[in-house]
Amino acid sequence: MPQLLRVQNFNVSADGIGAGEDQTLERPFGHLDPGEMFAWAGATASWPNRTDPGGTRGLDDYFTRDFRNNIGAEIMGRNKFGPQRGPWQDHEWQGWWGDEPPFRTPVFVMTHHPRPSFTLSDTTFHFVDGSPERVLELAREAADGKDVRLGGGVTTVRQFLDAGLVDTLHVAVSPVKAGSGLRLWDSPEDLLDRYHLEVVPSASGVTHHLFWRR
Amino acid sequence: MPQLLRVQNFNVSADGIGAGEDQTLERPFGHLDPGEMFAWAGATASWPNRTDPGGTRGLDDYFTRDFRNNIGAEIMGRNKFGPQRGPWQDHEWQGWWGDEPPFRTPVFVMTHHPRPSFTLSDTTFHFVDGSPERVLELAREAADGKDVRLGGGVTTVRQFLDAGLVDTLHVAVSPVKAGSGLRLWDSPEDLLDRYHLEVVPSASGVTHHLFWRR
Repeated sequence: MPQLLRVQNFNVSADGIGAGEDQTLERPFGHLDPGEMFAWAGATASWPNRTDPGGTRGLDDYFTRDFRNNIGAEIMGRNKFGPQRGPWQDHEWQGWWGDEPPFRTPVFVMTHHPRPSFTLSDTTFHFVDGSPERVLELAREAADGKDVRLGGGVTTVRQFLDAGLVDTLHVAVSPVKAGSGLRLWDSPEDLLDRYHLEVVPSASGVTHHLFWRR
Repeated sequence: MPQLLRVQNFNVSADGIGAGEDQTLERPFGHLDPGEMFAWAGATASWPNRTDPGGTRGLDDYFTRDFRNNIGAEIMGRNKFGPQRGPWQDHEWQGWWGDEPPFRTPVFVMTHHPRPSFTLSDTTFHFVDGSPERVLELAREAADGKDVRLGGGVTTVRQFLDAGLVDTLHVAVSPVKAGSGLRLWDSPEDLLDRYHLEVVPSASGVTHHLFWRR
């Protein structure tokens, strides 16, 4: 089986925006409201952050369930990891996710400012400075035969798309417009020269966009 | 996490029929053409019986991918295992699937005529005589914390539905009518007193029906 690089459960607004401007500690998605963007996923039984039983097991649940299915590592950009910019002032910050990050695999954080690896519960964060090709190589090795998830944010996904390294994408498009922010695409059709696209509307209001290589 | 009992990738015709009449060695689905019924699944990248690379990675692939996701055991009826009826004449028959059955877990075959367990590649077949409750208990134990797949056929699914043991069902409804045969339902709405239902049409022509407990 080939080891795929998969974008999974990535959320954008109707106008293609994945994160707002002005990221801060209090607002990881800037002016965008992540509660609104992720509501479809939070309602499902398999949402990784779910603490109570229950939740729906319809179409949306297939996507939250697939978040971990056959994934052995994640790659993320530094801005998904935290709001700091430039050299680390200290190593106190350990991500937005508390003591039990939902990844449960090695995670490779792309940054020009490396720092020591650390482990929280089942997740180990590594900090790597290198090209997308090189980071993917490291993540594939750590994934031990399984697929690698490309976790975002927008800039990181675009960087890997430009390098031709992404095998599949699942993007959930919300019905709301964001107006400004970091843009994944002008239109999903931007990717049609390189990818097949299937568009699947869900009862929750999001429209699942599934891409795979031509 | 609860250990679910899941019906997965179960195929029926537009009129609710899952297998034709007159099952024989040559025609495991009787007068129904399984090629036609399973075409949607065979076209996907994650189809367990796929021998060549390629295949689609759209919506249908989420379902074939989920066939194995977090499954630790399967329960099937004797008629899914083979065309014989009554006491075994010998133990030569080892199922329809050749040397590498697609299950890759313990499989519990329900039969009033037990025979010794045997293993083919990653799949071990056990033959058990008992109530659905009792067989589910055995399968849950063997699944080691994972979910159990209820593999069919129609009679077995109905038996477990009647006993109130099924947690989720994924049924792919083909656009063709079968006319006669073993019927899963008169209409998917038969289950609405006990299950939520989401209906998701696919580009391949089948309509995925997703049920989960109310």
